[in-house]
Amino acid sequence: MASSSNLSLSKSLFSPSPPKSATTQNRDRIALSVPGVSATSRAVALRRRVGSLTTVRAVAAEAVEKKDAVVEKSVNTIRFLAIDAVEKANSGHPGLPMGCAPMGHVLFDEVMRYNPKNPYWFNRDRFVLSAGHGCMLHYALLHLAGYDSVKEEDLSSFRQWGSKTPGHPENFETPGIEVTTGPLGQGIANAVGLALAEKHLAARYNKPGHEIVDHYTYAILGDGCQMEGIANEACSLAGHWGLGKLIAFYDDNHISIDGDTDIAFTESVDKRFEGLGWHVIWVKNGNTGYDDIRAAIKEAKSVTDKPTLIKVTTTIGFGSPNKANSYSVHGSALGAKEVDATRKNLGWPYEPFHVPEDVKKHWSRHTPEGAALEAEWNAKFAEYEKKYKEEAADLKSLISGEFPAGWEKALPTYTPQSPGDSTRNLSQQCLNALPKVLPGLLGGSADLASSNMTLLKMFGDFQKDTPEERNVRFGVREHGMGAICNGIALHCPGLIPYCATFFVFTDYMRAAMRISALSEARVIYVMTHDSIGLGEDGPTHQPIEHLASFRAMPNILMLRPADGTETAGAYKVAIMNRKRPSVLALSRQKLPHLPGTSIEGVEKGGYIISDNSSGNKPEIILIGTGSELEIAEKAADELRKEGKTVRVVSFVSWELFDEQTDAYKESVLPAAVSARVSIEAGSTFGWEKIVGSKGKAIGVDHFGASAPADKIYKEFGLTVEAVIEAAKARC
Amino acid sequence: MASSSNLSLSKSLFSPSPPKSATTQNRDRIALSVPGVSATSRAVALRRRVGSLTTVRAVAAEAVEKKDAVVEKSVNTIRFLAIDAVEKANSGHPGLPMGCAPMGHVLFDEVMRYNPKNPYWFNRDRFVLSAGHGCMLHYALLHLAGYDSVKEEDLSSFRQWGSKTPGHPENFETPGIEVTTGPLGQGIANAVGLALAEKHLAARYNKPGHEIVDHYTYAILGDGCQMEGIANEACSLAGHWGLGKLIAFYDDNHISIDGDTDIAFTESVDKRFEGLGWHVIWVKNGNTGYDDIRAAIKEAKSVTDKPTLIKVTTTIGFGSPNKANSYSVHGSALGAKEVDATRKNLGWPYEPFHVPEDVKKHWSRHTPEGAALEAEWNAKFAEYEKKYKEEAADLKSLISGEFPAGWEKALPTYTPQSPGDSTRNLSQQCLNALPKVLPGLLGGSADLASSNMTLLKMFGDFQKDTPEERNVRFGVREHGMGAICNGIALHCPGLIPYCATFFVFTDYMRAAMRISALSEARVIYVMTHDSIGLGEDGPTHQPIEHLASFRAMPNILMLRPADGTETAGAYKVAIMNRKRPSVLALSRQKLPHLPGTSIEGVEKGGYIISDNSSGNKPEIILIGTGSELEIAEKAADELRKEGKTVRVVSFVSWELFDEQTDAYKESVLPAAVSARVSIEAGSTFGWEKIVGSKGKAIGVDHFGASAPADKIYKEFGLTVEAVIEAAKARC
Repeated sequence: MASSSNLSLSKSLFSPSPPKSATTQNRDRIALSVPGVSATSRAVALRRRVGSLTTVRAVAAEAVEKKDAVVEKSVNTIRFLAIDAVEKANSGHPGLPMGCAPMGHVLFDEVMRYNPKNPYWFNRDRFVLSAGHGCMLHYALLHLAGYDSVKEEDLSSFRQWGSKTPGHPENFETPGIEVTTGPLGQGIANAVGLALAEKHLAARYNKPGHEIVDHYTYAILGDGCQMEGIANEACSLAGHWGLGKLIAFYDDNHISIDGDTDIAFTESVDKRFEGLGWHVIWVKNGNTGYDDIRAAIKEAKSVTDKPTLIKVTTTIGFGSPNKANSYSVHGSALGAKEVDATRKNLGWPYEPFHVPEDVKKHWSRHTPEGAALEAEWNAKFAEYEKKYKEEAADLKSLISGEFPAGWEKALPTYTPQSPGDSTRNLSQQCLNALPKVLPGLLGGSADLASSNMTLLKMFGDFQKDTPEERNVRFGVREHGMGAICNGIALHCPGLIPYCATFFVFTDYMRAAMRISALSEARVIYVMTHDSIGLGEDGPTHQPIEHLASFRAMPNILMLRPADGTETAGAYKVAIMNRKRPSVLALSRQKLPHLPGTSIEGVEKGGYIISDNSSGNKPEIILIGTGSELEIAEKAADELRKEGKTVRVVSFVSWELFDEQTDAYKESVLPAAVSARVSIEAGSTFGWEKIVGSKGKAIGVDHFGASAPADKIYKEFGLTVEAVIEAAKARC
Repeated sequence: MASSSNLSLSKSLFSPSPPKSATTQNRDRIALSVPGVSATSRAVALRRRVGSLTTVRAVAAEAVEKKDAVVEKSVNTIRFLAIDAVEKANSGHPGLPMGCAPMGHVLFDEVMRYNPKNPYWFNRDRFVLSAGHGCMLHYALLHLAGYDSVKEEDLSSFRQWGSKTPGHPENFETPGIEVTTGPLGQGIANAVGLALAEKHLAARYNKPGHEIVDHYTYAILGDGCQMEGIANEACSLAGHWGLGKLIAFYDDNHISIDGDTDIAFTESVDKRFEGLGWHVIWVKNGNTGYDDIRAAIKEAKSVTDKPTLIKVTTTIGFGSPNKANSYSVHGSALGAKEVDATRKNLGWPYEPFHVPEDVKKHWSRHTPEGAALEAEWNAKFAEYEKKYKEEAADLKSLISGEFPAGWEKALPTYTPQSPGDSTRNLSQQCLNALPKVLPGLLGGSADLASSNMTLLKMFGDFQKDTPEERNVRFGVREHGMGAICNGIALHCPGLIPYCATFFVFTDYMRAAMRISALSEARVIYVMTHDSIGLGEDGPTHQPIEHLASFRAMPNILMLRPADGTETAGAYKVAIMNRKRPSVLALSRQKLPHLPGTSIEGVEKGGYIISDNSSGNKPEIILIGTGSELEIAEKAADELRKEGKTVRVVSFVSWELFDEQTDAYKESVLPAAVSARVSIEAGSTFGWEKIVGSKGKAIGVDHFGASAPADKIYKEFGLTVEAVIEAAKARC
């Protein structure tokens, strides 16, 4: 299971003797008394040492002044890196970086704990730019902080083919970017997932005196994120869970693309967040109020039982004399003239992309400091490992993403004699078998646990006061659920989140699922009631086009197992695909265990489950998926009784079949056999590729109906008789 | 354009001499002094007339007592109709109807203005059961109120094949149901749309002394709806718009499917709604506090500048001695034993589905009262029409959905010499041409008006104080936007809402779009930036699988026009399809006007735009859509220069092409010509059906990239050269 890429992720963890250069283990970075640390705290440190108030004051005042100057310069550097990159690309969003540079500076230079030379250091603070269009803020900060992923040439190739600096933050392109944002609201929900992961792992692994999991999750979200429903869903959960180490900055700049937010957004965000159970702080001057930002973060950290929203009122495009505070600076380059005017206005004499030497020097300490932080943590971990061998081994596997050899043997096995069951129930058997071998499996349902069959019976609920448990209760918040799972999956390689609802309600969470696919987040989507077989709830609850819609989506596996063996196979595939999410479409209704199904077959996507032909020349091939594979098999039995040679193929995952060799594909679906009939209780869209122009796809190309499932199957013509008739018409 | 079915919708409007039996024009139904009216208000009326306090008190007390008894009996009738229907179906949700019967009774029996014999009477109050799973509440109320759509036999065939009482409320099945709900949160957003429509039309058409548009919109939503992000989006807008005639009841029963809401939902809903700008009232005893419910509604009506949330604390499954207040009563039949126990507990001696005579009698007044209300309104309308001829004609067309003959001539026309433009800009030309002929066109964008090009230049913004305007500013709330548009479209047949965002963000609103399709709501989805042609914003913003995903969805038209003429054609089709929503995929990038495109062609879905072959035997057929049709045409030019006979087909809408005759299809895509190449900047999923197994579909089967559009097209192989190469390989 282990891939070599994971080793590098966790290399620091396993380094033999960590250097120990940091002089303090104080949790708060501001108080670290290493060179170049924030002047405010340096002054505090000096005061302690010197003891003479007069001297202290003079020294402190000078230090503060000097510090203030370099902070201001650093903030302007961030602004101009953004301005210059957008200008050069003639595309992008300068407004947010210009307005948020102060909070960005304070976070990355004074508050956050990270190691720029190992962006994957496990215990780093996480930062999510939920307002992803402002990504030049993040790229500029990574650049200043010393991340190798964003060099000057990367900044100057912003938004260009093959660059490390795409138009929105993409975790798979740029080390240092935690998650993929841009579609609004996703990022803050990801941040909730990251904070959940921290709280959960801390509860499971920390021991008295050994706070081995201990980091904050920071996010910046804008007005757009605030308007999106997904953000409210995720933030309601964050409040419910009491995620005290989640600190979100709301860039309150009153401007969105269409103009002043007054045209569409006049709610009281403060009041809403108080209602959601958050601690809310308002920094009225986010443009220059550095100390207010610092104080707000300090206050946020002091509130440990609630997440904090720091509303920071800023001016979008701060510094631009003619475009600041207007929508024109939101999503377009300033233009050469306005760039000049802004340079003058902010007193910035430098060439594009220039980082002044004193700013460079100021930030340069983050490389040794980051290494020291990681080394310090490694030493702590070594201590921990001595005392808590088993927990340390577990945690190591979560950090590396490596599973114990033969883990898949834990999956349940079935024979045709096993009692028939719905694949949603069989799925629960798999889920409950896996935690023994997979310490990182956790998840839950959007208020349908008892229908989706997703409870892990050996665990309680992940709640505010029981964060060590693994059943996550998402409430009726599908979209938030998906994005929270993306955050969990991207927290560390060994965490395997699953989430569940009725298959039709993937429509509510599709944007998050697409980001799972794009950002290579291994989320397992347990989607039950996967067809008209759902019955009485009717067409609002019956998926039709959903299988097709996910088959068309890149980098996501759509799996529709037919019985217990295939369900186990689907879980094996889902877990093995570390960089792909999987959607499991599962039945509400009971199904038999079919002879011929196999886990190896599932891994190939499409395979023969029965055949009475020889020489790869059946008269007819019947193809089914999920609950309809049984129908195909029954039709084959009848046809064989009449002397036909019939092959039955399970087509459990189109994507996996597509990845097989041509020879294998030919062995399953020989080109010479054009007599093919497929049956699937969903849209026939796309099936022409499998059955060919002479074949027949039996499916449902209209909305469903409210009635008992058997009745609907019959009325919609999804029957053994229909398959036999279509087969006979073709051979 | 007029279909016969619309005439019936508007029949009452056009009835020549409306009867006038109601003795008062008082807006508040409670105060109507017709027989059988609520005892409380009757007492008030009596008091006015009699003048002797002693007599009044005695009469009133007796009336109140009698009234209270029949109210209680009516409420229990509602409860048992729900219990019995769910029991008979052995499927459904008895808990909500049992808990919400009191508020349901007060609404339908005492407050709402409707005409049961004409469910489409224009000025009726609208009611939306957002918690659609509790639909037996609504069916029971419609039944008692005298709607012909829900007879006793309909109640007893609840959730059965072909019944009028499906498992969730469906407007297209059951007259009296306004919108289709069940997927949580959709209903309250629909209600916002209905209330928006009322406010807008009232502002446009009401004149001093002529309140011709004047109704309330009521909704019931549960905990599930409250958790969904879409509800927060829509309610934030409702607060922003000050929709004072929207009154939503929040069934606060503390139970959802997975158990007590405490496991996932501990926010303060009151505080959140106050933050959203709503007036909030709490009825603490929703089980028996009829007067509290009445008082709350009165208070809600008195607050005219804000929508009102009435939080009604109820007991789910009220009356069931062993299952009330538990999740077991949420979504399952009570079971025979518990039904018996509930009958005993509530003192209900009747057979299943029995409506006691006094309850029947009590409700029977709604038929004459409803007729009187409509007649009264018709008379008012006749007065109005005399004074305001033009406005009345407009409003009539909105009510009937009839357009002026030849309306489509208003659409702009183009020639190959017209300056090339992006189809998003061309779309704006269409949108701005249409209001002259379509008084019901209104809409907007989710904060991308200036990118989607959706502003109607002759109008201002629909806002709290300018509700007569037609540019709706939805903010970054795609999901709420779609569902609000469903509400607008289903308010009356002539309203044509459009809404817009980037095509990729249909993922955020897909659940609402599916309900447009299912509920036959003509919403026009203006989806720009429809491919990798979007460029620098990168893969989070570039749709790939979206065309395929909508082609697979039933009853929705996916249109991808290639130039100005096709864009105009797409609008014509979208508007003509009264019972289907349309999705218009539009380019960001500039495109030429192609010779050969036509509106008639668009109406056929696929058609020949150029051909140098004869006898329906081209050597090769090139097929393109939208921005790639130009590439196909250019490739054809090159191939023709080399002497090939080449046909170019525009495949603007697969669904429309599918509906053509076999002969027509053969005339465009002759079966004998297997040399076919398609090009489309999206997933090739499904294209096999069009190009066949010997053809080649050129597309994009992976995620996009951040770079200038031209570069991405080239890198991804979407070029004239690639089409030529594929064509040559096949002929």
